[in-house]
Amino acid sequence: MNSSTHLDAALRWDGSRLAILDQTQLPHRELWLTLAGAADTADAIRRLAVRAAPLIGIAAALGPAMEVAAAPDPEPGMRLLREARPTAVNLAWAVDRVWAAARAGGADAARDEAERIEGEEGAASAAIAAHGADLLAGARRILTHCNTGALATGGAGSALGVIRELAARGEVEVLASETRPLLQGARLTVWELTRDGIPVTLAVDGAAAGLMRRGEIDAVIVGCDRVAANGDVANKVGTYAHALAARAAGIPFVVAGPTSSVDAALPSGDEIEIEERDADEVRRPGGDLVTLPDVAVRNPAFDVTPAELITAFVCERGVAQPPTAAAIAALLAR
Amino acid sequence: MNSSTHLDAALRWDGSRLAILDQTQLPHRELWLTLAGAADTADAIRRLAVRAAPLIGIAAALGPAMEVAAAPDPEPGMRLLREARPTAVNLAWAVDRVWAAARAGGADAARDEAERIEGEEGAASAAIAAHGADLLAGARRILTHCNTGALATGGAGSALGVIRELAARGEVEVLASETRPLLQGARLTVWELTRDGIPVTLAVDGAAAGLMRRGEIDAVIVGCDRVAANGDVANKVGTYAHALAARAAGIPFVVAGPTSSVDAALPSGDEIEIEERDADEVRRPGGDLVTLPDVAVRNPAFDVTPAELITAFVCERGVAQPPTAAAIAALLAR
Repeated sequence: MNSSTHLDAALRWDGSRLAILDQTQLPHRELWLTLAGAADTADAIRRLAVRAAPLIGIAAALGPAMEVAAAPDPEPGMRLLREARPTAVNLAWAVDRVWAAARAGGADAARDEAERIEGEEGAASAAIAAHGADLLAGARRILTHCNTGALATGGAGSALGVIRELAARGEVEVLASETRPLLQGARLTVWELTRDGIPVTLAVDGAAAGLMRRGEIDAVIVGCDRVAANGDVANKVGTYAHALAARAAGIPFVVAGPTSSVDAALPSGDEIEIEERDADEVRRPGGDLVTLPDVAVRNPAFDVTPAELITAFVCERGVAQPPTAAAIAALLAR
Repeated sequence: MNSSTHLDAALRWDGSRLAILDQTQLPHRELWLTLAGAADTADAIRRLAVRAAPLIGIAAALGPAMEVAAAPDPEPGMRLLREARPTAVNLAWAVDRVWAAARAGGADAARDEAERIEGEEGAASAAIAAHGADLLAGARRILTHCNTGALATGGAGSALGVIRELAARGEVEVLASETRPLLQGARLTVWELTRDGIPVTLAVDGAAAGLMRRGEIDAVIVGCDRVAANGDVANKVGTYAHALAARAAGIPFVVAGPTSSVDAALPSGDEIEIEERDADEVRRPGGDLVTLPDVAVRNPAFDVTPAELITAFVCERGVAQPPTAAAIAALLAR
C-alpha cells in the first residue's frame, strides 16, 4: 500500500476489453474489474468505481466501443451510459463521439474513436501539467481538493498532474482536504502522492480556510467537472468554499482540466445540473452510521465556483488568466 | 432515540456530586458518568465527553467544587483542569472563580460559587435566545455548525437556543453542517433538534457554501469558544469558511455565546491559541481508517473568524452589531 510504484493508469484497455481499478476499494484493496459493455460501464460510473470527469470520459468511450461489434442494438446501453451522472460534461461528449463514429463506420470506427479519445486525454494531462507548473512556479505549499491524479484522468492527472510536475521541478508539500462525503482526498490523493514520494498532509475540509488565513498555503489547485462559457466551474462539493478562502487570503486559486470539460454551450455555472447523491453517503462517513438513520440530508456532489474567484483556468491548450468568456473562447479556438 | 422528550441538561449536580452525559456515545447511547473531582473532570473535558465552551465552564466549576472539601490539596487537580483544553476561555474563568472562592471561604464558598456559575450560565442561555430571536426575526432557513444546544450550555443553548426560540415563535428549518472531524452536527445537533421536533437537514461541511450561494439559507448562527476584545471569534473548525460564504451570499452571520466566552484581555483573534487534536480524528471518520494509517495530519479544533465578517455578537446582555471593540466593551460594561 505504501509502495513507491507509480500508478500508471486507473483503467486498462487491451484493444477489445476494458478493466478498471475499483476506486471504491482504495486505499485498502487494489481490485480490478472487467466491464462487459456500456450498461456495465454506466453502473461503474454511477457507483464511483470509475470517477472524475476526464476518466469518466475515457471509460465512457472505451466501455461502449467494445459493445458496438457484439451487441445487436448498442443504443439502449449508450443512452444509459450517457445519463449515468449529470454534472461532468465529458461523459456525454465521449459517448456522442463514439456513437457518431459507430454509426458512420461501424465497430472498427467506434474503437478507433474511443482509442483516439484515450490518447488525446493522456496527452492533455502532460500538457496541463507543464502549463500549470509554469503558472505556479515558486509555489511550495499547495492545497488540493478531491482527487485529480492518475485515478482521475488518462495520465498523471489534471490538478495533481500539475502538482507532480511542480514536485519534479522543485520542493512541494501538499495539503489534501479529505473531501467529504466520499473522502477522495483521504482515500485517493493521499494514496497516490504517497506512492510518488510527494509529502502530503491531510486535513478536514473545514480546516482549509483557517490554514489559508494563517498563511500556511501558497496556492490552491483543483480539477473541474464542467466549465461554463463564462469561466464558472462546477467541481467537487467544497471547492467553492476553498475558492472564497483563497481570495480572502490573497493566494492563487487555479482550476486545471482538459478542454473536454468545457461546455461552451452553457452560458454560466448557474445552468449546470448538480447531482444530488444518496443520503447515506452523509449519514455514514467511512461506513458507520453516526447520526439518526432517517435524518433528512442534502448531498450535492458538486458546487459552482464563479469565474471571478478563479485566478486561471489551465487546459492542454494553455492558460486563461483570468478565465473570462473571451479568454476561454480563445483557448478553444487554438 | 427519536423520542420528543426535551433534553433538560447534559449534566446533573445534586449539591455534592456531578454526573455528565457522555457525549462521545451520542446519538447511539445515553450514558451518564459520575465524575470524581477536578482530575476526572479534566479527563472528561479532554476526551470531549463534556464539550463546548459554556458547558466546559460549568463542569469546570462544579467538578472541583466537590473536591475542595474532600481532597487534602485540591490545587494540583485544579491546575490539571485549568489546562485541559486551551481554546475556550470559559475553562480558566470558571476554575479561577471557584478556586478564589475556596481560598477565601473554603468548601462551602467553593460550592456556592460553582452553583452561582451554573445558575448564571443557565440564565444566560435564556437571555441569548431572546436577543438572538429578536435579531433574526423573519429568518426561516437557518444554518448552524457544530453543537450549541442543551448539550453545550447550561440551558437551551447559545446558537441552538436562538434557533429554538425562533421555532417557538414561528416556522424554522435548520441546516446542520456535520462538523468534521468529530461530527457534532451529525451526532448531537440532529439528535437535539429531532427530540425537539424542529425540522433539521444534515449536510457535509463543504456543501454549506454552495447552498448559501444558491439562496437556500436565510441566516447563519454559530456559537463561540473565545471572543477577542476586537470581536474576532474562535469557534469550531469550519466556522470561518461558513462566514466567508455568508458574506458572499449577503446573508447575516451571527455569533451567540455568554459573556464568559469573551476574553477582554486578548486584543485580537490572532493571539488565540488553537488546539491541535489527535490525527486519528481525521484518519478515522466515524471510527474506521479511510486513509493510510501513518499519513501526516493537520487537525486544528478551531479557527478564527475576523470581526468584519460577523454581523452581530449576541450575548445575555444584548447585541453588539457590528461587533466592534467599542460595542463589545459597552456590552461587558452593562
